[in-house]
Amino acid sequence: MDVKIINPFVVAAQTVFKTMLSIETSMGKPILKDVRATSGDVTGIMGLVGDKKGTIAISFTENGAIFVFKTLIGDECTKMGPDVVDAIGELTNIISGQARKEFEKAGINLKAAIPMVVVGHNVELNFITKIPIISLPFYFAVNGSGEKDVMFLDFSFE
Amino acid sequence: MDVKIINPFVVAAQTVFKTMLSIETSMGKPILKDVRATSGDVTGIMGLVGDKKGTIAISFTENGAIFVFKTLIGDECTKMGPDVVDAIGELTNIISGQARKEFEKAGINLKAAIPMVVVGHNVELNFITKIPIISLPFYFAVNGSGEKDVMFLDFSFE
Repeated sequence: MDVKIINPFVVAAQTVFKTMLSIETSMGKPILKDVRATSGDVTGIMGLVGDKKGTIAISFTENGAIFVFKTLIGDECTKMGPDVVDAIGELTNIISGQARKEFEKAGINLKAAIPMVVVGHNVELNFITKIPIISLPFYFAVNGSGEKDVMFLDFSFE
Repeated sequence: MDVKIINPFVVAAQTVFKTMLSIETSMGKPILKDVRATSGDVTGIMGLVGDKKGTIAISFTENGAIFVFKTLIGDECTKMGPDVVDAIGELTNIISGQARKEFEKAGINLKAAIPMVVVGHNVELNFITKIPIISLPFYFAVNGSGEKDVMFLDFSFE
């Protein structure tokens, strides 16, 4: 795995969680996926194009997405809806923007497309590519008792 | 609706169906969507970035996707699987590529990201944007008795 490609995403995800959500995340071991499919209840997808090209998918459980919404916006919320979708879309935008800044430091310029947020149980998301798909798990506490949830940032970059 | 934005996608979809699949399509009335969500059983998503930025979503019913696979590849097939996902991903790539050529004729240069194909029933796909989302329906016959299916090409472009 190419650290030059992975690091911008690691820094971006952890920086955005810390600055926007005041949440410390711990990253699990990066996984080189041997299947192209990923899945999550709520997934933000963003295309990034420029000196390189690729697509990222940021997946949450439904509970994780609701927790992010509540933390980001400050409103109460118990179930999925347009507001939660918006929050995950916004987070996808912000993490992509931060990653682009990190890539810029390495002389790689990228522009972002318009994000989509996919909602549904047992949804299968396939990267259509022959190049590696890397999955970065970020764990975060969702309450005071230390219960954890996970966000996966999957990406494939040429 | 801006014809300069719509036409490249219309020409691309109809050209690719005709040349790659030998299928004539008839386009229904373009719809300016008042909801951001779209849905389909099998959807190819592609980010396009350059002089403009946007994302397209090409949605099929499961039957429609299987029909496209059989027509494109020539193999028999009765249910969803990786081969059908690949065919829809490839079609998303090819339609995006053709649309980029059409945009180029108008002096608009775009590059494509890596496509994703989303599979699942009742999946909700949300464009995260405040700009219009346009949906183009393309009808095509799936057998000799004139039974029709539909592909939706939804897009949002800034």
